[in-house]
Amino acid sequence: MPFPPEATLAEVGEFALIGELTGMFGQGEQVLVGPGDDAAVLRVRQGHVVVSTDLLVEGRHFRQGWVEARDVGHRAAAQNLSDINAMGGRAHSLTVGLAAPGTLAAQWALDFAAGFAAECDLVGASVVGGDLTGSDQVVIAVTVLGACTQAPVLRSGARPGDVLAITGRQGWSAGGLAVLSRGFRSPRVLVEAYRRPEPPYAAGPQAAEAGATSMIDVSDGLLADAGHLAADSGVAIDVYSASLEVPEPLHAVAAATGADPMSFVLGGGEDHSLLATFADGASLPDGWTAIGVVAEGEGVTVDGAAYDGETGWTHF
Amino acid sequence: MPFPPEATLAEVGEFALIGELTGMFGQGEQVLVGPGDDAAVLRVRQGHVVVSTDLLVEGRHFRQGWVEARDVGHRAAAQNLSDINAMGGRAHSLTVGLAAPGTLAAQWALDFAAGFAAECDLVGASVVGGDLTGSDQVVIAVTVLGACTQAPVLRSGARPGDVLAITGRQGWSAGGLAVLSRGFRSPRVLVEAYRRPEPPYAAGPQAAEAGATSMIDVSDGLLADAGHLAADSGVAIDVYSASLEVPEPLHAVAAATGADPMSFVLGGGEDHSLLATFADGASLPDGWTAIGVVAEGEGVTVDGAAYDGETGWTHF
Repeated sequence: MPFPPEATLAEVGEFALIGELTGMFGQGEQVLVGPGDDAAVLRVRQGHVVVSTDLLVEGRHFRQGWVEARDVGHRAAAQNLSDINAMGGRAHSLTVGLAAPGTLAAQWALDFAAGFAAECDLVGASVVGGDLTGSDQVVIAVTVLGACTQAPVLRSGARPGDVLAITGRQGWSAGGLAVLSRGFRSPRVLVEAYRRPEPPYAAGPQAAEAGATSMIDVSDGLLADAGHLAADSGVAIDVYSASLEVPEPLHAVAAATGADPMSFVLGGGEDHSLLATFADGASLPDGWTAIGVVAEGEGVTVDGAAYDGETGWTHF
Repeated sequence: MPFPPEATLAEVGEFALIGELTGMFGQGEQVLVGPGDDAAVLRVRQGHVVVSTDLLVEGRHFRQGWVEARDVGHRAAAQNLSDINAMGGRAHSLTVGLAAPGTLAAQWALDFAAGFAAECDLVGASVVGGDLTGSDQVVIAVTVLGACTQAPVLRSGARPGDVLAITGRQGWSAGGLAVLSRGFRSPRVLVEAYRRPEPPYAAGPQAAEAGATSMIDVSDGLLADAGHLAADSGVAIDVYSASLEVPEPLHAVAAATGADPMSFVLGGGEDHSLLATFADGASLPDGWTAIGVVAEGEGVTVDGAAYDGETGWTHF
């Protein structure tokens, strides 16, 4: 450990901490200039740069005590990497900004960075720059850059007759949050899913190659994000609830909390599963499950009717 | 005005506000997919992507009452655009994240965005994505992407014998901050310089073309940033104070506050002037002034001696 265990950010100092942090991030072959100059410099091939940005705020997107610093690092990277996945792209470079109180343990920042770097390693992406500053509350700002080897898959391409399909865990994170919200720590598999999502990183480019007509990652909730596909594509989407798997641990949580287990699956976000549409008759890539259809019209229905359970959330 | 004048972010709602904000940002020809999908998609030519990120925190980087929302937008864009300038690059695309309390006026966000867009317009750059979320304190996260038409100018290229030169206003913002800190509103020209820096955007690429050996934008303070050049290049830098212009309004502020006017020039950051080194005998581009020399050794001196006045600041 490079700093005394109890040292705060203020005691360690901005420049010492930045020096320590930048040493934790390996640099890929696309990186001509990494962290430490006015800007990073990346070598890019002719083509598309796919870019997305997200904020995580302490007390809203994570709570100290519910998630460890390392988990926050994994989550912060995952939710951004997933946005590139949802375009059918492959992430290669990220920047990360950390605003935090001077009283925060310096070790928290190091653990956060270790989790962030480990998640980026899963897809071979590099942290090429960042910023560190003081604030009253921990706020993490991530921007991710990626590349597409084929046309990016937008939210707007779903057409009537297409099949709606999903891949990746769905509802697990929401179940974990429900557990933690009530002061419990199990089922552990759900709590772990909340702490560290496992987005299906390989699935985005695979879906793009298989001709997905539209795609989104589930971060607001399955129905909310299906709603984004429907609205941006100018179509209606019907979800077949019988096609959706309700993972076993969710039944236990639902029983304990009096909730409908399907509400976690339909309403849950933050697992960063992928939702995509494919032309009718197209063969779905491995790991995808058909869960609905696209029709003319607007809005999202479940089994042909409006769903009146919990769905998604807003940020204010 | 699209919202009632007193409406808060919480009353207006995340999606309505995002819709309004994205409509304010024009999209350049490099933008294939702008805000609203999982990620933006940019067309890039073979070459280098230059990327940098910065955070602005309410109460640290700006204070409500000292700067209007529109000024905060200008500042947030300017400090990031300036980082690309300092590489000798031209910025083309930005993302912006806004974390803010739900009680903040929605109009504040719109005014912020208007200032941000106006600053980006100065260099023809587009806001291609963003994020909006709740927090206890306003935190703004900006990432900027740019391109270099020649090799980027790093901090590490200064060589003994090089000339140190500067372009752009220097010390004005620090003077404005000193004025505001004491409850005054004039000299107005300094207060305005603090509220809206005017980085010399054209000067970065010009310096690169003129063969600058190293470059940095002054954001921590002239001596502090000269120190970054010296440290990264493994050289010593001596600044000639007689070569530095002390703008007339700074004399008045210095007299009123009992400060050495030169301390604003040597210690001041946030004007985003550019500091660069050029080979001895090279002709400086228009607008640049030689203010010192590079020698073997380490550290920064003023007129051959250590400077013991105010220089720069740290973030915790």
